Formats: sequence, structure tokens, C-alpha cells
Amino acid sequence: MSIRLSTADGNFEALFTELLATKREVSEEVGAVVAEVIARVREEGDAAVIDYTRRFDRFDPSVNGLRISAEEIAAAYEAVDKPTLEALKIARERIEAHHSRQLPSDLRYRDDAGVELGWRWTAIHTVGIYVPGGLASYPSSVLMNAVPARVAGVKRIVMTVPTPDGELNPLVLVAADIAGVTDIFRIGGAQAVAALAYGTETIPAVDKIVGPGNAYVAAAKRQVFGKVGIDMIAGPSEVLVVADPDNDPAWIAADLLAQAEHDSAAQSILMTTDAAFADAVEEAVQKQLETLPRAEIASASWRDFGAIILLNGLEEAPALIDRIAPEHLELATDVAEKLVLKIRNAGAVFIGRYTPEALGDYVAGSNHVLPTARSARFSSGLGVLDFMKRMSLLKAGPDQLRAIGPAAIALGRAEGLDAHARSVSIRLNA
Amino acid sequence: MSIRLSTADGNFEALFTELLATKREVSEEVGAVVAEVIARVREEGDAAVIDYTRRFDRFDPSVNGLRISAEEIAAAYEAVDKPTLEALKIARERIEAHHSRQLPSDLRYRDDAGVELGWRWTAIHTVGIYVPGGLASYPSSVLMNAVPARVAGVKRIVMTVPTPDGELNPLVLVAADIAGVTDIFRIGGAQAVAALAYGTETIPAVDKIVGPGNAYVAAAKRQVFGKVGIDMIAGPSEVLVVADPDNDPAWIAADLLAQAEHDSAAQSILMTTDAAFADAVEEAVQKQLETLPRAEIASASWRDFGAIILLNGLEEAPALIDRIAPEHLELATDVAEKLVLKIRNAGAVFIGRYTPEALGDYVAGSNHVLPTARSARFSSGLGVLDFMKRMSLLKAGPDQLRAIGPAAIALGRAEGLDAHARSVSIRLNA
Repeated sequence: MSIRLSTADGNFEALFTELLATKREVSEEVGAVVAEVIARVREEGDAAVIDYTRRFDRFDPSVNGLRISAEEIAAAYEAVDKPTLEALKIARERIEAHHSRQLPSDLRYRDDAGVELGWRWTAIHTVGIYVPGGLASYPSSVLMNAVPARVAGVKRIVMTVPTPDGELNPLVLVAADIAGVTDIFRIGGAQAVAALAYGTETIPAVDKIVGPGNAYVAAAKRQVFGKVGIDMIAGPSEVLVVADPDNDPAWIAADLLAQAEHDSAAQSILMTTDAAFADAVEEAVQKQLETLPRAEIASASWRDFGAIILLNGLEEAPALIDRIAPEHLELATDVAEKLVLKIRNAGAVFIGRYTPEALGDYVAGSNHVLPTARSARFSSGLGVLDFMKRMSLLKAGPDQLRAIGPAAIALGRAEGLDAHARSVSIRLNA
Repeated sequence: MSIRLSTADGNFEALFTELLATKREVSEEVGAVVAEVIARVREEGDAAVIDYTRRFDRFDPSVNGLRISAEEIAAAYEAVDKPTLEALKIARERIEAHHSRQLPSDLRYRDDAGVELGWRWTAIHTVGIYVPGGLASYPSSVLMNAVPARVAGVKRIVMTVPTPDGELNPLVLVAADIAGVTDIFRIGGAQAVAALAYGTETIPAVDKIVGPGNAYVAAAKRQVFGKVGIDMIAGPSEVLVVADPDNDPAWIAADLLAQAEHDSAAQSILMTTDAAFADAVEEAVQKQLETLPRAEIASASWRDFGAIILLNGLEEAPALIDRIAPEHLELATDVAEKLVLKIRNAGAVFIGRYTPEALGDYVAGSNHVLPTARSARFSSGLGVLDFMKRMSLLKAGPDQLRAIGPAAIALGRAEGLDAHARSVSIRLNA
């Protein structure tokens, strides 16, 4: 059973605020351990990476080499059944097609004063993609991280994936190959992040590291930020489903469970205007849990973090949605298009009754790496721009310098930066 | 005297690599102190902020209130001379005009399968701007941070600026007012970052914090990242000037010193093809230092971190420039436009002999908040996009779900996420 709130209740504001503040992750204090791992990898390179891998992943990566070989990738293809391979290829194509529309334009123009301004976008040269091992090792995530990088024009895409006990995940290797990953290393944890940030004898230093990971990986990314770029720090996944009573409760229940099965710390929230419908969804959730392979995870998530919010009317939804700032937002109502225009904070919006969030997870073409933990207030899903940077361009001639230079001189002097002022005035007095 | 390298020397690669690796900042270990400050501000709110301000800024902010009042801002206008005020207004207008061109477009389209995809950009609601006190308290930086936020459509811009001993900087207040800052608080340090991230009784919690600061501020931003967005972690400023021997050595010297006067940890590098020209620039630097108010800072920077790199020809420049990835790049040569096309890593490029970097610092319209410490490899200067986020949109109908749903089901099952698969299949089997 999830908790239930109603905007009609007098204590709604307090309960809603509490819901927003719910911590779904135990924030482990791993900073010091991670700092030591990073320092050792910087100092000792491959030797440290091999040692940590022996210790944490329980195998010796020096036997087959840190790098996963072309032969191992070829073998992975053999281990993947044809329908799955086809589905991966469809996904790659659709992700590529959609992300190609995110390629930014360069600009160069001359303003009224004759000053030429503009910018040029270029791809980051080398990018590292961290792929988790174990339960969260998803081939779809490999596509979602690597394909936009390729579209951006990244030359070298270096992937690390831990292989506990030395076991490879064929799906992940095939997805990487399909997506255009250029180098794959069988390492994980803070040691992989450190190796990507600083480079070792075998592992090339990258310019930016993207991809999710556990607390150690997140702490390592935080610590190497600045030396390299990083993407967001991903938290547990979440969905907010806004559904009117005209929906089939079983469909909505399936959507809530699709989120809940990710992780016991995932969060599924239903927002609806009808208490009887809410009851029906709750019932359908319990029923579907009976046949769900990951029922244990999903039921823990639904029990601990699931919520149903009853509204007096859908017009109450946008303000609450913006405060939740959900990673995924499903709008299963006929007025979905109207609602979208009133919403500002959501990672991705799934419009209408036939757009389950899982479509976006895999094959729609949009990215499934999205801002979690209310960070849609200030950040966007992963995209092509995350793999590019904008170089600012400026050009003035003598006339332009005469026109706007004096204001620069005035401000330079006002700030006590006389050499700034002089670098302009020396050209004006020539 | 700066150090001098030549690509003609046998040991150039080693010396150049060393130059790239030079640490210009002592990285203070302030993480633990900052964590404590943040925890106390979260716990005690205003009381903690007031206490830290008493201790570090040596005045009691509760006397006049944490908020800087409309009367104090009005008084600041009285203290600024008219030419400087006019220059600030020119700067604001030009920055606004240029950044308006960065506003991104929304997109909505239907692909071949009939799936509707797209995105919608919206502004971040509330942004915090950290403005340093003391030497680095620049009104121009207030404009560079606040104006793009306004252009993006940010509703509330909350600025914090430390006022050591309670002394206000009128220029900074006027710049903030001109730029459209909505709230100003007389606080700084990690306590200001904590207050912006978590909010107090008086200070509103923001969604993102931008702006430079000392080691404590940088560490605080790193620690609150995730709870709020942050911009890059700024390091000491740097310029790389590529100049052929046809330049007036005094102009180039002025440009090198304009960077050096910022900070003794700033770095100015000259790249040229002519040793005699290099000598002349070095001589001009020494001469100009004699009359520079901030000579002490500038000469320390030039002595400790300045460098002259002699090339055999300008064709060697692009590869070296990309490895340096300078914050500012001046191309004082007739082939500047050709060079620009070959360069990928630079924060901002100043093209031609009449575009001193200081023009971009103040009034050109482009942003002067740029990636330092080689981070132009993976990041861009501050812009309108830093104050917006992109909400992904997806819409399918029954036909589209039938077309692409099976691939999503296949991938969901392959990943062991059966509820994902079910959320699609339940709609297909209806």
C-alpha cells in the first residue's frame, strides 16, 4: 500500500512538503574512501586499477587484459538472440534520428556598431561512459549515453563496465558496439572513474564522464569534476502519473510498477481526481505484483515511496507537478496537451493514454537519462549538447574599438583593472 | 621574466606537458569545514548565517538586516559617477542583445511512424548569484551572470555578496539593479551558498547557484550540487595570445598584463613565430609594469606562470592551442579567420589585432564567464542555456504503440524488467 494524500485535506500542505522531502537514498559517507582510490589510481595507474578490480570484482583483469577485445565482442553477438538484436538496432536508429535534431547551429553576425559576434559549437573529443554492473547494467542505457555522443561528433567513446567475477554481459557489449563505442574496459567503481579522469598506461584520459553508478561512482564523479566534465548525479528513478478516471486502472498500475521494479528506492506517484479510481489502481497494483518477477523490489518501492494524490480537479495539477519536478511525467487524460503548456518542471512528459513511459525508455528516440530527485527544476535530460561546447567568437576593427572601447576603459578603471583599460586605450591612441 | 619554450627544441614535448600540468592554485582542504557550515545553516537558518557573518566579515548583519534595502541601492546610485553608470548601461544593453540570440527553439514533430517527439525549453524559476567580495568583486561579473538569467526568463534572481566590515560596494549594487537582480543579501562564503541551496527564514532557496568564489565557496558549491544546480568551478583566469611579428609589441604586452593583473595565479601565454618579437614583448611587459597600479600582482603572475612559446610556423598553433584549451584566445594575425576554423578548445576567441580581450570582459556583449583550467575541452562559457532546461515530450497513439511497442517489449524483457514490458503489452492486448 502506498500513502494517500488529498488536496481537500486541511493538512495537505504539510504532508505534501513531507513527501517532497522524503529521502529515498541513504547517503553513504564514502568521500574519504573514494579520495584514496583516486589518489592511488593517479599514482600507480593500471596496477592500482587491477588491484581494486581483484578486490571488489573478485577476478584478475590482467589475465585477459583490462580492455575487452574484439573477439569478446564478436562472441557477445553470438550470445544475443535475434529479436533482441533487432530491437537494439531499431532503438539505436530512432535515438540517432531524434538526437540529430538537437545539433546546434553556429552563429556569426555583425551588430549595429559593426562588431562581429558569434559562436562555434564543436564536439568534445573524448568521452567516458560509465556503465554499472549487476542489476542496473542496461544495454538501453549504453545506447542512451553513447548515441548522442556519436551524433555530437565525439571521436573517441571510452566505456567502462564492471564484470563481477569476470562475467561479461553480452547485451551491454553488443549495445556498445552498435552505438559506436570505441574502447571498452572491464572495470568499475571509483577506480574506473579515476582511470577515465586521469588516464593510466592502458586507459585513455577522457574529457568528460557520463553515466550512472552507485554511491562510490557518484562520489568519484563529484571529486573529479573540474578535471573532467561530468553529467548529473543520478538518483533513484521516479514517475508521476496524472490519470483521470477514464483510464483502465490496470494500465496505470502497470505504469506505476514499471517504475517501482527498477529499485526499492524508486518512486511512483499517481495523481487523480477520483478516489474510487485510485482504489481500483491500488487493487490492480497488488494483483499485478503477484505475477511480477521483480515483485520484491517493486512492492518495497510502492510500499515505502509510492503515493496517491487526490485532487479536487485537474487544474490543481500543474502547480503540484512543478513542485515535484518528476523525472517522468505521464499525462493520461484528454486534456494532456493543455496541461503540458502549464508545466515547467519535468524531465520528460508522456502525453496521452497510449504513451507508457517504457516507450521512452527504449525505442521512442528521446533520451531516458533524465533529471531525478527534483533536479528537473534546473537541469535537462541527456542530449547532444552535453557532448558539445560553444566557443565564443568576437571581432572588432579600429572603428568598432573606437565606438565601444571607451565604455570598456571606463569599466576597467572603475574596477581598478588599469591594464584592462590600457589594452584598449593603447590601440585607440596609436 | 616568463619561461620560454620552443617547438624547435628537442625537449619541447616534455616542457609543454609540464606547462599544461602546472598547478596554479593551492587546493586547500576545506571540505570538512564547509560541510559543517552547510549543516549548521540547514539546521539553524538565519541565526547561523548571522553568526558566520559576524565572525568572518566582522560586522553584525542583523543590525541593518541580511537583505540590502531599496534605500541602500538608491544610495549606491548616488555614489557612482555618471560615465561609469553609462558604461554599465551600455554593457547591459549589449550583453542583453547578444544573449537574446541564444534563446533556444522548442520543437514538436511527427516521425515516419507517426510518433510525436519534441521538447519545450523553460527558464529555471529561481537562481542564486554568488558575487565575491574584496579584490574580485566586479560589477561586470554581476552583469555577465544576471543578464543571461533575465534573458532566459528567470523570475527571481537572488544575489549574495559579502560586505566585509559592513562596507557596501556601490558599483556592484548598481550593476545588480541594472541587471534585474530581485533580491540582494549581504552575506558570503560557504554560509551564503548553503543559505541559497537550502533557504533560511529570510533567504529564499534557489534552484541553481552561479558565480565565482574562493576555495570555500567552490567547495560549498561542489557539496550542494544535486540539491541545486551549479555552474562550473572557476579557477584563475588565463589568456593565450597568438601574435605574429607584425604586431606592436606594446599592444601584445598590454594584453598579457590585462590577464596577469587579475590574480597572481592568472596565466598569460604568448605564442609567436619570432624570437626577436618575443624579446620585444617581454621588454614591453617590463616597461608597462613600471606604471601599472597592480604591478605587484601582475609581475608575480607573469614571473610564475607567464610563458612564451616559439613556433616554427603558425601552422603548429592549432594543435597546441587545443591542448592548452585556453579560457581566452587572442589571434593577432592576418590569418586569424583561418586559424579559428582549426581550433576546437577555447572559451572565447578574440579575432584580429583590434580585439583585445578586455573588450569581451566588458562591453562586446559576449559573456566573460568562461571555462578555465583547460575545461574548455568539455564546457562552454556561461549563457542563456545555463538558465533554462529542456523538457522532453513524447506522444504515441494506438497505431504508433503497435508499430514500435514490440521492440520496447523485447528490450524490457531482455533487461529483466517485465513490468516495463507489461506497461506496453497491456495496451496492445486491450
